[in-house]
Amino acid sequence: MKILSFKLNGEVKFGPKVKKEEAVWDVVAIQRDLNVLPTFSTNIIDGIALGFDFVEQIRKLVEAAEQSTSTEQYKLSFSEIEWLSPVPRTPKNIICIGKNYDEHAKEMGAEAAPKNLLVFTKAATSIAADEQVLPIHATKTDSLDYEGELAVVIGKLGRDIPKNQAYDYIFGYTIANDITARDLQQRHVQFFLGKTLDGTCPMGPYLVTKDEIPDPQKLTIVTKVNGEIRQNGSTKDMMFPVDELISTLSKYVTLEPGDVILTGTPEGVGKGMKPPTFLKAGDEVKISIEGIGTLSNRFE
Amino acid sequence: MKILSFKLNGEVKFGPKVKKEEAVWDVVAIQRDLNVLPTFSTNIIDGIALGFDFVEQIRKLVEAAEQSTSTEQYKLSFSEIEWLSPVPRTPKNIICIGKNYDEHAKEMGAEAAPKNLLVFTKAATSIAADEQVLPIHATKTDSLDYEGELAVVIGKLGRDIPKNQAYDYIFGYTIANDITARDLQQRHVQFFLGKTLDGTCPMGPYLVTKDEIPDPQKLTIVTKVNGEIRQNGSTKDMMFPVDELISTLSKYVTLEPGDVILTGTPEGVGKGMKPPTFLKAGDEVKISIEGIGTLSNRFE
Repeated sequence: MKILSFKLNGEVKFGPKVKKEEAVWDVVAIQRDLNVLPTFSTNIIDGIALGFDFVEQIRKLVEAAEQSTSTEQYKLSFSEIEWLSPVPRTPKNIICIGKNYDEHAKEMGAEAAPKNLLVFTKAATSIAADEQVLPIHATKTDSLDYEGELAVVIGKLGRDIPKNQAYDYIFGYTIANDITARDLQQRHVQFFLGKTLDGTCPMGPYLVTKDEIPDPQKLTIVTKVNGEIRQNGSTKDMMFPVDELISTLSKYVTLEPGDVILTGTPEGVGKGMKPPTFLKAGDEVKISIEGIGTLSNRFE
Repeated sequence: MKILSFKLNGEVKFGPKVKKEEAVWDVVAIQRDLNVLPTFSTNIIDGIALGFDFVEQIRKLVEAAEQSTSTEQYKLSFSEIEWLSPVPRTPKNIICIGKNYDEHAKEMGAEAAPKNLLVFTKAATSIAADEQVLPIHATKTDSLDYEGELAVVIGKLGRDIPKNQAYDYIFGYTIANDITARDLQQRHVQFFLGKTLDGTCPMGPYLVTKDEIPDPQKLTIVTKVNGEIRQNGSTKDMMFPVDELISTLSKYVTLEPGDVILTGTPEGVGKGMKPPTFLKAGDEVKISIEGIGTLSNRFE
């Protein structure tokens, strides 16, 4: 199932994509009108915390709408909604892995990827949506750079999760652009300030439930800037695969439903180009991951 | 005003300390019974977002209780409540400043404090309370260390805050222990993993409103381990004072009501001792800051 979050008349909502249509099912309205389920949360994080039961709830609501006499009124066209990040606000900062692809570590000047996890965070205030026009922050940085990444959305509270149970704690996947101000990242040594400007964590378009991604280590990630391919990687090249990330992270930080882990970026960022080439106003970045879709953002 | 957060019968509450008594006013109960105000939030972050109006609301509620016929029933003795961190859950990770005191930077092996802000975060899941017994995490680290710090609680949403307006964005102050796993901090290079274990951000006892702290750069910070003085510093020695911290941070990250900034620790941490001396089960750490009180935690 592909779930999206959106705003309609000022209200934050979510729902599954209508198959083969550019529209979303307004599941909250379906439940309100048709009273299909004993309870149904209007907050996506409460839903995510239910795991597969949430997917089942949504399926029942869509089925009820399809069987009702007013099916069409529960479909909202993409043209009438404002897209949000699939998780509009994470319960803690977005957890990010640095240098998780060997070739990217090298293009950043390292001899090889680090032996131990490099973990930093982006503030929840940096979250943005697919298709959102993002600030170039020209007065704050001269070197804004893209990083296309697979994002993992946690579905269950967990500590000390064994590697072989890690997938039980995943709700689904989305795409993220870990936009980075290279000058700030370098000047302030610890990455946080260079990673956390408003709008530097666009995510989307969909939160794809894990059943649709049988192997997250076999996905191509392609990043284009103004149509030019810059990154063309595969998640098979992660130094620390998703199950290991979850297991190691959960040893040191309690993972919660709605937490998002950015799994690192493959080679091909602007800083690695000769000469280094950073984003400028008017640029459009598109990141595509197999089975999830394409995250597009223009800068101004 | 000294405000504390606590749990009573499973409910998260807050209230001001009763003057000269070991008790807290149950302001939520006062409002519920006596209906003093048109509206009053039961969530401390919503209150903090009101700034000084929140303090005024609380004053009116206490006054109403004092004038009522059942004054005593609105006082909860400290012995019957479970203390929480004054802000039980921050809206984003706790924002922390590294090496903000020159002598501490030197004891950590640096030649001097860094010229540019060193900023990292602790997950909101690391928050703990005054008097809470904290885990020593013996299976995860062999070098848990204390860092006594002045914590600033933000009261107003802000971006690009000019230094001369920084105090307008402060709601108040508390004490924090930025407990750090030195081995993880070093091994993982980026500080997050070594700073974020559960229970490694005790804060309290009170959130002291800013009117009671006329100059946050003139406060002594004393840290004792098992009664022995380890840190005896003053906030006057911060390399980046509080107004500059707020101004610089807000250039790169949107500050929100309830956000907490840990302003760095003076010299005297365990890692700086000869030989380095880390915390062990049974140890008790007490951090005192003038005008705020003492934050005490035992480890087991």
